[in-house]
Amino acid sequence: MINNQFAIVPTDSEAAIAELKTIHFITDEVSKLTTVPAVYRALLAKSFPEVNTAAGLTHKFKNLMATSQHDLAAWLENATVVNNQVFYNVGLQLLGFLPGEDFDLADPLLAMRDIHLPMVADSAFDREALYYAWYLLLNTRGKKGQTLIEILTTRGYFAPFYDLPNAQKPLFFNGKSQAVFNTNHLIRDVVYVEAPLDTDHDGQRDLLKVEILRPEETASGLKVPVLYTASPYNQGINGHAGDAQMHNVDVPLTAKEPDNNTYDDVAYQPTAQALPAKRPVEHETKDAEETFSREQSYTLNDYFLARGFAVVYAAGIGSVDSDGLATTGDVAETTSTVAIIEWLTGKRTAFTNRDGNVAIKAWWTNGSVAMTGRSYLGTLATAAATTGVDGLKTIISEAAISSWYDYYRDNGLVVAPDTFQGEDTDVLAAEVFSRSLKAGDAHRIQPVFDQKLAELTRDQDRTTGNYNRFWDERNYLKNVDKIKADIVMVHGLNDWNVKPRNVANLWDKLQNVPVTKKLILHQGQHIYINNLQSLDFTDMMNLWLSHKLYDVDNHAESLLPNVLVQDNTAAQTWHGYDNWWQDTDQALDFKVQYKELVPADHDVDQRAAHFSDHLPDKLFDHYRHHLDAWQADLFSEHKSDPMYDHRLLFKSWQAPHDQLLVGRPHIKGSVAVNQNHGMLSFMLVDFGMAKRLTVSPQMIASKALDLGYHWREDDLKDFKLAPATPFKMITKGHLNLQNRHHPWHAEAVQPNEFYDFELDLQPIFHHLLAGHQIGLVIYATDMKMTVRGNQNLQYSLNLNDIRLHVPVKPVDQN
Amino acid sequence: MINNQFAIVPTDSEAAIAELKTIHFITDEVSKLTTVPAVYRALLAKSFPEVNTAAGLTHKFKNLMATSQHDLAAWLENATVVNNQVFYNVGLQLLGFLPGEDFDLADPLLAMRDIHLPMVADSAFDREALYYAWYLLLNTRGKKGQTLIEILTTRGYFAPFYDLPNAQKPLFFNGKSQAVFNTNHLIRDVVYVEAPLDTDHDGQRDLLKVEILRPEETASGLKVPVLYTASPYNQGINGHAGDAQMHNVDVPLTAKEPDNNTYDDVAYQPTAQALPAKRPVEHETKDAEETFSREQSYTLNDYFLARGFAVVYAAGIGSVDSDGLATTGDVAETTSTVAIIEWLTGKRTAFTNRDGNVAIKAWWTNGSVAMTGRSYLGTLATAAATTGVDGLKTIISEAAISSWYDYYRDNGLVVAPDTFQGEDTDVLAAEVFSRSLKAGDAHRIQPVFDQKLAELTRDQDRTTGNYNRFWDERNYLKNVDKIKADIVMVHGLNDWNVKPRNVANLWDKLQNVPVTKKLILHQGQHIYINNLQSLDFTDMMNLWLSHKLYDVDNHAESLLPNVLVQDNTAAQTWHGYDNWWQDTDQALDFKVQYKELVPADHDVDQRAAHFSDHLPDKLFDHYRHHLDAWQADLFSEHKSDPMYDHRLLFKSWQAPHDQLLVGRPHIKGSVAVNQNHGMLSFMLVDFGMAKRLTVSPQMIASKALDLGYHWREDDLKDFKLAPATPFKMITKGHLNLQNRHHPWHAEAVQPNEFYDFELDLQPIFHHLLAGHQIGLVIYATDMKMTVRGNQNLQYSLNLNDIRLHVPVKPVDQN
Repeated sequence: MINNQFAIVPTDSEAAIAELKTIHFITDEVSKLTTVPAVYRALLAKSFPEVNTAAGLTHKFKNLMATSQHDLAAWLENATVVNNQVFYNVGLQLLGFLPGEDFDLADPLLAMRDIHLPMVADSAFDREALYYAWYLLLNTRGKKGQTLIEILTTRGYFAPFYDLPNAQKPLFFNGKSQAVFNTNHLIRDVVYVEAPLDTDHDGQRDLLKVEILRPEETASGLKVPVLYTASPYNQGINGHAGDAQMHNVDVPLTAKEPDNNTYDDVAYQPTAQALPAKRPVEHETKDAEETFSREQSYTLNDYFLARGFAVVYAAGIGSVDSDGLATTGDVAETTSTVAIIEWLTGKRTAFTNRDGNVAIKAWWTNGSVAMTGRSYLGTLATAAATTGVDGLKTIISEAAISSWYDYYRDNGLVVAPDTFQGEDTDVLAAEVFSRSLKAGDAHRIQPVFDQKLAELTRDQDRTTGNYNRFWDERNYLKNVDKIKADIVMVHGLNDWNVKPRNVANLWDKLQNVPVTKKLILHQGQHIYINNLQSLDFTDMMNLWLSHKLYDVDNHAESLLPNVLVQDNTAAQTWHGYDNWWQDTDQALDFKVQYKELVPADHDVDQRAAHFSDHLPDKLFDHYRHHLDAWQADLFSEHKSDPMYDHRLLFKSWQAPHDQLLVGRPHIKGSVAVNQNHGMLSFMLVDFGMAKRLTVSPQMIASKALDLGYHWREDDLKDFKLAPATPFKMITKGHLNLQNRHHPWHAEAVQPNEFYDFELDLQPIFHHLLAGHQIGLVIYATDMKMTVRGNQNLQYSLNLNDIRLHVPVKPVDQN
Repeated sequence: MINNQFAIVPTDSEAAIAELKTIHFITDEVSKLTTVPAVYRALLAKSFPEVNTAAGLTHKFKNLMATSQHDLAAWLENATVVNNQVFYNVGLQLLGFLPGEDFDLADPLLAMRDIHLPMVADSAFDREALYYAWYLLLNTRGKKGQTLIEILTTRGYFAPFYDLPNAQKPLFFNGKSQAVFNTNHLIRDVVYVEAPLDTDHDGQRDLLKVEILRPEETASGLKVPVLYTASPYNQGINGHAGDAQMHNVDVPLTAKEPDNNTYDDVAYQPTAQALPAKRPVEHETKDAEETFSREQSYTLNDYFLARGFAVVYAAGIGSVDSDGLATTGDVAETTSTVAIIEWLTGKRTAFTNRDGNVAIKAWWTNGSVAMTGRSYLGTLATAAATTGVDGLKTIISEAAISSWYDYYRDNGLVVAPDTFQGEDTDVLAAEVFSRSLKAGDAHRIQPVFDQKLAELTRDQDRTTGNYNRFWDERNYLKNVDKIKADIVMVHGLNDWNVKPRNVANLWDKLQNVPVTKKLILHQGQHIYINNLQSLDFTDMMNLWLSHKLYDVDNHAESLLPNVLVQDNTAAQTWHGYDNWWQDTDQALDFKVQYKELVPADHDVDQRAAHFSDHLPDKLFDHYRHHLDAWQADLFSEHKSDPMYDHRLLFKSWQAPHDQLLVGRPHIKGSVAVNQNHGMLSFMLVDFGMAKRLTVSPQMIASKALDLGYHWREDDLKDFKLAPATPFKMITKGHLNLQNRHHPWHAEAVQPNEFYDFELDLQPIFHHLLAGHQIGLVIYATDMKMTVRGNQNLQYSLNLNDIRLHVPVKPVDQN
């Protein structure tokens, strides 16, 4: 295993000793001990909260080896000095590493270095060095992805701290808030926030149900910050309604009427809408009338519930017990999302029930809010941030959409999120309109929603795939300059559901916005990374939120790398960078000739190449049900392979040395098609036999991560190297030939006439190993994402015109 | 969905009303209400523990439809009578069923019948009928596999009951103990039981670590029964040590020296061993000195922790913090398992720590013990039961081994548990010898254990595969007549890890033992069935244990079917039977001729058939890594298929009607082989295109089952019908030709000479659909289970001699 730890705050010895006192490792009794081994023994004794007698403790010590020949109990009996060999032999065992398997008792320092664990160099410890080493060890991650202080937390170390007075809470250690809050005593409230909306047109402002979990200490005056997750899913989803709305993608691409649209023609302009009056407030109370037993929880939030943060969930307009309609990404949805923050910061009213006359304030919060969540949840965090709403100090947006056009469309084409062929904004709205799950409510509201659904279906316009006013309303990138919240973005470089363009465009736009922004790019798909063995993501977020929401001066902004990227060629390897592609001006530039990508400054053969998009019916049908087989066949290079005549494939020479391909690969060229419409798709591929990371993190230990003490648990996982494969897709892109200049502008295509095109592919951060080849695949129908009419479309490309530009940065930057 | 509920205790109206009072549904206030609708409203109001105001409640009522046109709030305003249409419309919604999707508001009774939910027939309810219907509804399972009273439990209904005086606890409803114990306040103790063993020969009796979880009410005098799980895994496992011990199975079968063994020659005789003296007791205490934070838990136990049962875990000899050595199934292991029960019942001493002079009694228990657990855990429960130990009232043994020879061997062959090729008793011992995980302890004990390991390796005797003294010691079936505990057995008919013979032999032997025995046969592999949507297994076990351990007179013994079997041809279908095959004398009897199974009374062609066990190297290597491909090819019927010449396949005529194949299929015949050793394997196969159940239960709802209130959760799952397949293996069996009469007796084989053989296949309970065909496959090397030498062995079978006998029972018995 290799440890990657970014959240350790460099701390001087004096501060470390003070902190050890705060968490009761150094007590008056310990201070009075006269020898270093005695102090060491006392620290170790506190590491076994399970036993309360000398006999019990001796047995625990006997289970540990101090040297290759002596167990800890025996060693302690005769110890006169504590050296780093013994300290790290015992330390590694406390961290869960196994002598013989993970390290050699004869040389623990070697393992400390190999696993990348921080250590103190002194060979013999004086009292101060021992304290410092102990402090560092507490902050060191063990075999199961938890630091020693977290391991002790899950074993009850902090349970006695539950009773500390509020003045001593929260409790920070190494800049991070600790689990001194009893999660068995959380207070759970439901309130109804009145939003400045009437999306269901019932003449009343929409009430939005909010679920609150807060530490019981708030009841006695502690003010806590809030992690707010806006999740349209968390009151349930209507899978049947979503399925019924799903679109058939086995339909032909059709020609669109050419238009003269400019962006201004499709720009969304807000229109002022009359709003019903606010509900009058008759009384005010501090006590909620309604509670709940089990929210749809989220690991990162659960972790912070044990650490002095409140958590707030709201599903927004159209969800169970709320008013309004689901509208997938529009301005009303953002307003609904922001209304909760406005309530948390005292600027909007909430009621204790849906009758709406007894108001209740968020009196228990300090007014600092962060938003969290992945996918749609992270999307709403992004949406809220682009309003610049006060009180929203930061968002941690994971796998978030930054423009809905980039989620459901691409360059004038309907392009589905991976594994969701046929989904669209209306499908998603039908699914998250959970009011339909409550028959009584549905009875009243369904006809109103069905009308909204028809509107979504019409305006999303699957017929043309063009960018229009509907999509412009749903483009948060337009408002990036309004962002005031600091941002952590997390995205999978292999996320073909919410494609990397979504985070890359946001990141790029943020370059000129005066907020702190951090980016983490992992090698997963559409996943959370809370539970990886090799990265201290949760600690990093603790550092970040302790700073942003509790104003702890912990250097979070400088400690966290600007851009943290998981290497795609090795397990458990993460590198920090100053930026993505924005700080590089180097690139690889290619031309093509028969089957080859060649450097752009070479002379090449002049010729055209052709392919037919039409597949034999049986093959087409097979691929419809075996999408991965289709993709693999796309890369196969034998003339007899079924896709051979249905795409063009160009491969570069072998890379002379490792290369980091970064940013937006750009392709241009000229193409003709035999009808008055057509599309092109492109993939960049890494060719070369190599062990590559598993697509998803693999289970290491089930339920190994207790998020507090007797609290919720998560599984420990990580990516591993899988058996060698010959290729891997790096990125892709799609283009409707009629949108060769703009997604909002449809131009004519004459059959068999050549047209210039150019486009960016989805952005990348790819480590290409020496000896590997870059492949460029040009094809048309993308079985996984585009419509699939299996039409008789023949494409010709002028090879002479094709150029591929791939930004690169030096591998050794880090 | 189809509901299968066996744990509803028939209750008369008077008793039902009394019970509704006990659980506070009928209160004095409710009794004073004058109209039936008012009573109905009051009952409904108590079903929303989340809200405490009229306004909040009205909103909840507005979410429910009472009729196709009126929501519950509106309907209640004008209601003068309560009819069963409204009652079950609302009831179905309370149970989680969705109008429009799961049932029609115009006809809820149809859905009640279709889903197999119990109901009251009256069309209009008087007060008594309403109470009774409500009582029944509380005991009815909903869409997510929980009864309404369980749904209410997970939403906090019983939280106010935590404070009831001990005299009112436990609280039984419909014969089952309810979750009125606060699982956040469980007391966790560690004690060390002194076993009458010294397996590590250190001159001290072996101390065994025990982890206890008990309700806090025990501290104030409540005596509770114990669910005890003996799990060698639950202090951790040493995967590396197990892997290092794993045996190579790609070795040839070899000839064994013929012997004259009778069973008496291999019968295990216990030898008296001198035992060190007991530790002297210097003090006694009621307070443990050691606790623990997180046991390796088990869903069924967790469920009972909320319901007034203590749970005790012990990993036994050789595990972390215990003494002794892992010995895989021997008598010492059983003694170690039983020692915990002896302590629980006051007959053995436990100490507060490993110094062993302060004794601690199990003063908090009523002395009634049940054992629970699956696989090795269930095996140890079986082992303990066969000692007849006092206090062990019942065991619930799931997928348990009844004889270790039947786990690792078959008729003179090494036959691995499925997916564990190369495993054996020594591998398992190395894995569960978790003392090796504690370096300090390992330093002292590893050499002693390595010697024991060498002994296991020698005595298990992979060379001959014979049944010997070693295996006879590990055969619990010999002691079935000593069993005094009532037994529930659960086993998968597709469990090829712990094969069905293990449960069938125990069941068969128990026929003459005067205890109550129940058998549940499901269609899964080696799984738990706690979390199935379609079966109330947990409720059944609650009924069982409330009766066995709390002496509740709830008719558990008559309500639970003797033999409950999941149908293999339909989803969510379970049938009760009086017995397995023991109550039938009917059978199908077959002869064979070229490719055919024909009725035994037909004349057949006289000829021999041959096959070669030797595969081309490349194919053999392919199958080694693709075991399922090997098995599928075994059934392929085309001459060009790769396994065609390497097995014989005989298929019956199409079944004229549905048949239930039950018990032990029996095969006899005569065979010759071209060398002085050989083996035969057999499979019965169900041929016929049909949708068959998924191999494993599929996820329906993640974490949907809260086992109490704010307590641990399990996923809801069930088997579903998968796309149609042409065949499915029903059962298999294996035979070393040298053990053609007894597994303990090796006889000579002369090359090319014919020998009679006969054997039972693994027992079955298989529903063969009309039109399907039974297939018999005769082959030799079983890639999944036997050694795989890919030897040049040629087999000839006299077709004239082959007979297949399959017991059957009438399909319509149920």
